[in-house]
Amino acid sequence: MPGIGPRSAERIALWLVQIRGDQPDHIARAITTTRETVRPCILCGFFATGELCDICSDPTRVQDILCIVEQPTDILPLEKTSAFRGRYHSLGGRIAPLDHIGPEDLRIRELLDRVEKEPFSEIIFALAADVEGEATTNYIVDLLKNKPVALTRIARGLPAGGGLESADELTLYQALSGRTSIPR
Amino acid sequence: MPGIGPRSAERIALWLVQIRGDQPDHIARAITTTRETVRPCILCGFFATGELCDICSDPTRVQDILCIVEQPTDILPLEKTSAFRGRYHSLGGRIAPLDHIGPEDLRIRELLDRVEKEPFSEIIFALAADVEGEATTNYIVDLLKNKPVALTRIARGLPAGGGLESADELTLYQALSGRTSIPR
Repeated sequence: MPGIGPRSAERIALWLVQIRGDQPDHIARAITTTRETVRPCILCGFFATGELCDICSDPTRVQDILCIVEQPTDILPLEKTSAFRGRYHSLGGRIAPLDHIGPEDLRIRELLDRVEKEPFSEIIFALAADVEGEATTNYIVDLLKNKPVALTRIARGLPAGGGLESADELTLYQALSGRTSIPR
Repeated sequence: MPGIGPRSAERIALWLVQIRGDQPDHIARAITTTRETVRPCILCGFFATGELCDICSDPTRVQDILCIVEQPTDILPLEKTSAFRGRYHSLGGRIAPLDHIGPEDLRIRELLDRVEKEPFSEIIFALAADVEGEATTNYIVDLLKNKPVALTRIARGLPAGGGLESADELTLYQALSGRTSIPR
């Protein structure tokens, strides 16, 4: 399990065989139940207990803005910001030729299906700000370029709390060239 | 001296008394010369050997865009990006009430003088993306709001190379709300 090294594993194993009471059985059942009931949402790929996840089945969310992310786990930090009330589409990864991950390994066909069926007015690309995230964004933008929908990407620039001296050259370049107007 | 702890200091001191040749004297002279000749540029506050620094006295630079930074040392990383060919104004710090630094301690009057005399079409605020940098930006924007000049700030968002999982909540919020249109 992630984060559990040999020493932790040994401690847990000894705890399992020594403890009285049924706490280990509860944990075992919880693991089994989670594995049986949580599956990817058939629409967006996020975690769901039914066919659709809580976000896709929520009628109060904005229906015409879609945010594309790499992994379903990327949806959690975005939700925490409360800056976005639309819907998501998780690709399940990004194009990475060195790891033998091509476009056909991602949920891109599902995305194109959704764009055909659902009336989106804006699609936000929220992929990582690195070479593979960029390449994946460009690949999908190319597929969508003739669709009547606004395509945007999340901003690149200085992270919150950061000074200029701690930013790398590329970040400063993107911060300067992506500068925004100050309202007054 | 910064970066030199007790052990390094001792090693340098022993080197000074043991070495033959005049290398220590060269260093001493270089320090004296630097202290005597390098002073702040009277216009922008950057390092200069004459009245004006190399940037202010360079006629090939764009004359009508000004970039405001906190420290003269912030100009170096911005210059490395080559994304900006205009001129700078270093404030010499930022408003920090807890450190007893108020607007009158910064080179703000000099900035207002420059804005009156030089025909800037755009002023870019490139201060740190934290509370004090923000407060200083707002203070100066307020002073300049009636001037006929475009006021912009460097972009906030995901730093280069960063994934969504490594970004904090505020950075993701700013990246989402500052999203930009993708050209196609």
